[in-house]
Amino acid sequence: MLEDKNQQKTSLAELGEFGLINHITQYFKINKASTIRGVGDDAAVLDASEKQTLVTTDLLVEGVHFDLSYMPLKHLGYKSIMVNLSDVYAMGGEAEQVTVSIAVSNRFPLEAIEELYAGIQLACDTYNVDLIGGDTTSSTKGILISVTAIGKVDKGEAVYRNTAKETDLIVVSGDLGAAYLGLQVLEREKQVFKVDPNNQPDLDNYTYLIERQLKPEARKDVVGLLKDLEVKPTSMIDISDGLSSELFHICTQSKVGCKIYEDKLPLDPQVISTCEEFELDSTMVALSGGEDYELLFTVPIADFDKIKGNPNFSIIGHVTAENQGLQLITRAGQEIELKAQGWNALNKE
Amino acid sequence: MLEDKNQQKTSLAELGEFGLINHITQYFKINKASTIRGVGDDAAVLDASEKQTLVTTDLLVEGVHFDLSYMPLKHLGYKSIMVNLSDVYAMGGEAEQVTVSIAVSNRFPLEAIEELYAGIQLACDTYNVDLIGGDTTSSTKGILISVTAIGKVDKGEAVYRNTAKETDLIVVSGDLGAAYLGLQVLEREKQVFKVDPNNQPDLDNYTYLIERQLKPEARKDVVGLLKDLEVKPTSMIDISDGLSSELFHICTQSKVGCKIYEDKLPLDPQVISTCEEFELDSTMVALSGGEDYELLFTVPIADFDKIKGNPNFSIIGHVTAENQGLQLITRAGQEIELKAQGWNALNKE
Repeated sequence: MLEDKNQQKTSLAELGEFGLINHITQYFKINKASTIRGVGDDAAVLDASEKQTLVTTDLLVEGVHFDLSYMPLKHLGYKSIMVNLSDVYAMGGEAEQVTVSIAVSNRFPLEAIEELYAGIQLACDTYNVDLIGGDTTSSTKGILISVTAIGKVDKGEAVYRNTAKETDLIVVSGDLGAAYLGLQVLEREKQVFKVDPNNQPDLDNYTYLIERQLKPEARKDVVGLLKDLEVKPTSMIDISDGLSSELFHICTQSKVGCKIYEDKLPLDPQVISTCEEFELDSTMVALSGGEDYELLFTVPIADFDKIKGNPNFSIIGHVTAENQGLQLITRAGQEIELKAQGWNALNKE
Repeated sequence: MLEDKNQQKTSLAELGEFGLINHITQYFKINKASTIRGVGDDAAVLDASEKQTLVTTDLLVEGVHFDLSYMPLKHLGYKSIMVNLSDVYAMGGEAEQVTVSIAVSNRFPLEAIEELYAGIQLACDTYNVDLIGGDTTSSTKGILISVTAIGKVDKGEAVYRNTAKETDLIVVSGDLGAAYLGLQVLEREKQVFKVDPNNQPDLDNYTYLIERQLKPEARKDVVGLLKDLEVKPTSMIDISDGLSSELFHICTQSKVGCKIYEDKLPLDPQVISTCEEFELDSTMVALSGGEDYELLFTVPIADFDKIKGNPNFSIIGHVTAENQGLQLITRAGQEIELKAQGWNALNKE
């Protein structure tokens, strides 16, 4: 659980709830001008603004969303913030504040919680957001993290899921499937470790995959990149459950269909080689893997030249009429219906 | 767990996460003008405002904060909202939106979750707040509810904990200790039930206590009452952990002391009679019971006439210099130092 097994362990019961809160939050500074009051009162106070406020929340549960046998607590803290910031960026907004609540069983010493908050703090510093509140309590089993992120967006500029238009191009940032494969590699090493605890795993071929799983980065930059390109997406969503599931959300809510081209799906070379090794279909992994935290968005076809060739973006298809459904065009030119429940196959929930 | 043991049970796995979200949220309507977009996108969108935004969050964990053997799920849902709205009112603000995230083990059928959300909806309707988002996931054990409430307050009008002034009067709304005693009654009935499941408990003497425990009401009215009286509290906090703990927060953060008079503590007759029955000291219960969700605040001494005699409020003491500490003046005129950790004795955490 802790990286250094010999370090000091302080029981949470000794500190008490308020002692724990004080201890954890002493290193967090308030950076945003909009944060009038952060931790320490009944509620945080945020300044009035001419912008609209974005609010999103996610729960991460031990044994459901993460496994501490290969997820270091610092990474877990970092990831719990990323998962939420990603949702703010997927609205075209800027993240400004987070609240973090944790429920932990008494098997966790203070030093474990410090590791978790070190990751949360690194995420807050890197993405320039303030921790403004939360709740700490005990759990009867394991650890659970509940994060709420608050952001700002210019009035009327929020990018929704239900506003994709026929003929729009479908674009994705970064590449797909790596986080899911990272999980497969880590799960395999866990099994190997169980059989032979002295085995030293050689993970050199999987560094990108593991980093994508353990330390994902939310695409804060995409909102700025699109502004610089003078492209306003017609719809946007972040890829948490997998491309297929997110396309399903956009198409259902926008009452449109889509055509996605298998040969356009952006795959990292490590994804391709590891799929071969694991005998997995890389397209299936890209479509249904999940946890990529890339942004999927649609842009008017007139913006083709602005997006084309940009190394941050891949045009993977286009929006069609609703009655055409969701289609994948394979490399062989075959049309396959994308299953709405594609994500269910791999999703743990 | 369910009130009608014979009703239909639908497994959550059948519905899937999105099915569950759709099913739960279909009955929730958006009422607040400030809610531009609620459930259904990456983030909720709230309108720009000249007011400041209040944000507060609380976790409720089965086995730590509640026991489903006597806490009906509908009440649990209601209470999970109250706990958060209470924090918004304790800032002198108006609650406008909530997000609700739940982690549930697969022992809960859909109908149980419907009960929970029926309570959440009743709370939202009664207190005029919108449910704008959340997360639903599985847990490996029990049920956990994470609520974030968002409110508004006029710029510069938030009432903090660290602004009490020497000579201020200390005032509390409602009465104290009933919720804690309600819990004791329910715990006793649970033990009786274990021994004799056919025993029909007679709870007539404890109705107020049980209601305070199972269906607390946040004091939304107090903010309005004080405005009508033209009283601006100098500091305010809600009573979740017990009077003693909250006084400690106000005094520590405001760098003041206080004198509280035992004979001024507001106690319901059921609290007095049940304390006698349980052989508990009613002052101890009032000081350390917790979960009252009343508001504790300080007002300038010049406002004495405005507060005095108001049936909603009790003046229980006054603010002193920091070096005088926190003192309880007993009925016999004895000075007793209030223990900062008074709440720890009874608090489960």
